[in-house]
Amino acid sequence: MSTAYDPIAATCPVPHAEGERVLLGHGSGGQLMAELLADLTPRLGARATEDAAVVVTGAPEVVMSTDGFVVTPRFFPGGDIGSLAVHGTVNDLAMMGAVPVALSLAYIVEEGLPLEELRRVTTSVAEAARGCDVRVVTGDTKVVGRGAADGLYLTTTGIGIRLPGAAPAAANGRPGDAVLLSGPIGLHGVTILSTREGLGFESELTSDSRPLHRLVAAMITAGRCGVHVMRDPTRGGLASALNELAAASEVGVELEESAVPVPAQVAAACDLLGLDPLHVANEGCLVAFVDPARAGEVLAAMRELPEGAGAERIGTVVPDHPGRVVMRTLVGSRRVVDMLVGEQLPRIC
Amino acid sequence: MSTAYDPIAATCPVPHAEGERVLLGHGSGGQLMAELLADLTPRLGARATEDAAVVVTGAPEVVMSTDGFVVTPRFFPGGDIGSLAVHGTVNDLAMMGAVPVALSLAYIVEEGLPLEELRRVTTSVAEAARGCDVRVVTGDTKVVGRGAADGLYLTTTGIGIRLPGAAPAAANGRPGDAVLLSGPIGLHGVTILSTREGLGFESELTSDSRPLHRLVAAMITAGRCGVHVMRDPTRGGLASALNELAAASEVGVELEESAVPVPAQVAAACDLLGLDPLHVANEGCLVAFVDPARAGEVLAAMRELPEGAGAERIGTVVPDHPGRVVMRTLVGSRRVVDMLVGEQLPRIC
Repeated sequence: MSTAYDPIAATCPVPHAEGERVLLGHGSGGQLMAELLADLTPRLGARATEDAAVVVTGAPEVVMSTDGFVVTPRFFPGGDIGSLAVHGTVNDLAMMGAVPVALSLAYIVEEGLPLEELRRVTTSVAEAARGCDVRVVTGDTKVVGRGAADGLYLTTTGIGIRLPGAAPAAANGRPGDAVLLSGPIGLHGVTILSTREGLGFESELTSDSRPLHRLVAAMITAGRCGVHVMRDPTRGGLASALNELAAASEVGVELEESAVPVPAQVAAACDLLGLDPLHVANEGCLVAFVDPARAGEVLAAMRELPEGAGAERIGTVVPDHPGRVVMRTLVGSRRVVDMLVGEQLPRIC
Repeated sequence: MSTAYDPIAATCPVPHAEGERVLLGHGSGGQLMAELLADLTPRLGARATEDAAVVVTGAPEVVMSTDGFVVTPRFFPGGDIGSLAVHGTVNDLAMMGAVPVALSLAYIVEEGLPLEELRRVTTSVAEAARGCDVRVVTGDTKVVGRGAADGLYLTTTGIGIRLPGAAPAAANGRPGDAVLLSGPIGLHGVTILSTREGLGFESELTSDSRPLHRLVAAMITAGRCGVHVMRDPTRGGLASALNELAAASEVGVELEESAVPVPAQVAAACDLLGLDPLHVANEGCLVAFVDPARAGEVLAAMRELPEGAGAERIGTVVPDHPGRVVMRTLVGSRRVVDMLVGEQLPRIC
């Protein structure tokens, strides 16, 4: 795409050097976070292109993923911090083509938290784990004084076994691939925000928090090696996920605005709040780059499962403008879809 | 042991029902914590006798462990929150007879933390991991607002591969086993307390934080199946660890006070502060129950490594008073060694 105006160069300056302190935006899943990870991960001798990693190669391949959860409120329509943690970790494993086999659970509890709440979250973790056919095998509990945490934080780590032949990776996208989305976007983020702030939308909204490993297994069965890339667009939303994937695969992505499913309540809430639904977090959908020859079968297989019932082809991977995501809007113009810069909705997961 | 006075029955009542809220003592590694775990873990369909769990059985056996770290101060003589986290998780794997292969790292950061501090901790994690021959394979960073955490919390999860033939477990202790301790106790807890409170001991004290997997490998090579039980006495100290092991194995433990190595500075600090060195946390020593026929060889093998140079036989596993730990004191009397009740030193790890 050749144009005199470069929207990437024109984005707001990122306040990265401001006293060199951690900002809320460093946890956003967007551009600030990418910069922080680019700073920290080389110190660990690691790269940060995936949310999970292969630990043991050979057969079977063992995959590992970890996630901290600090969501507020801890209970919301469609889930709570416990079920969210299980689904989030199971999904990060699933995005590597892995079936979850074991979870660990580490609590950081603020002194004074009602014990009943800890019991309720623990029960929710157990139920969500059962629903994913995964065992919670080990755990840890730390208690900090009043004011040193906000109630309860939770870190889950998952181990999974890769499905035979499955090797989706952020860098595997190829020009021509179909961009598939498993369902409507924006529900988790808007639900959390509305519940937290008492905006009044919460009665109509429910988080999409749910496990995606069965959907992934169905997609891989239908698409085989044709499923090149999978990602769950959580923090930073669909826009940030696609930008990360486009950068990792060194390809461009072209989206059709008319094909991206945004529920009416999400659109209404975002309109009112000045949010872009493409930047709002999801916890129960995935985006995939799939060989065009296999895309039809994969889409059909997705739609057979409840978590993929609303699946759509929303765009195409292109050789032009590598690293950039461009959307053809409803009125036919084209706009660059940026990563989230800074923080839109803190403590969403 | 038959006596009219029952010191167990005479311990202070545990304030468990006080408003049914989480207390600092619930994170102590002592009796309150044991009660909390007995409440929560059945909800997860799990038991809580080990700090790690076998995930994949067969060959090789995969072991998993997780730990949250909330230590304050984050930097102390002998280590920092990053190296402590790596050593703590490596040691929990080692206590199952496993060699660590991969770690995950999840940060919960308070907005406003100097970025330089996050870099320093990350570098420390990397160096400690290199020192343990283990890779940090995946991670996560969440940022919470000011006042919603105390700077930085860190959860590490480790995966290890069990050494062939190694199956130490808390329930495997047998009457007659020698009780071996790898080195002096109390250094970590007293160092943290002194550094935090500026008590003036900190110039002479250094945390014992260090990895123990090489020591474990040497012990298993020397002792084979004769190494029945291993445990690193962290939160709750040696007393709580031995009580847990005695209960899990349904045996008694008899300690010789004269054989328990308490460094002079630890003894002096504990004296002044009214602490029992047996209840103070350690991060670089282990206690083991070993077949008496193998104990001599195991002890010799331990003493050949720097981390086992101060190893001692401190007691014997006995068939009497199952679940209780009794110490023969320097003056020849006997006293029951209880678990820590409530909290002695919060945020020690």
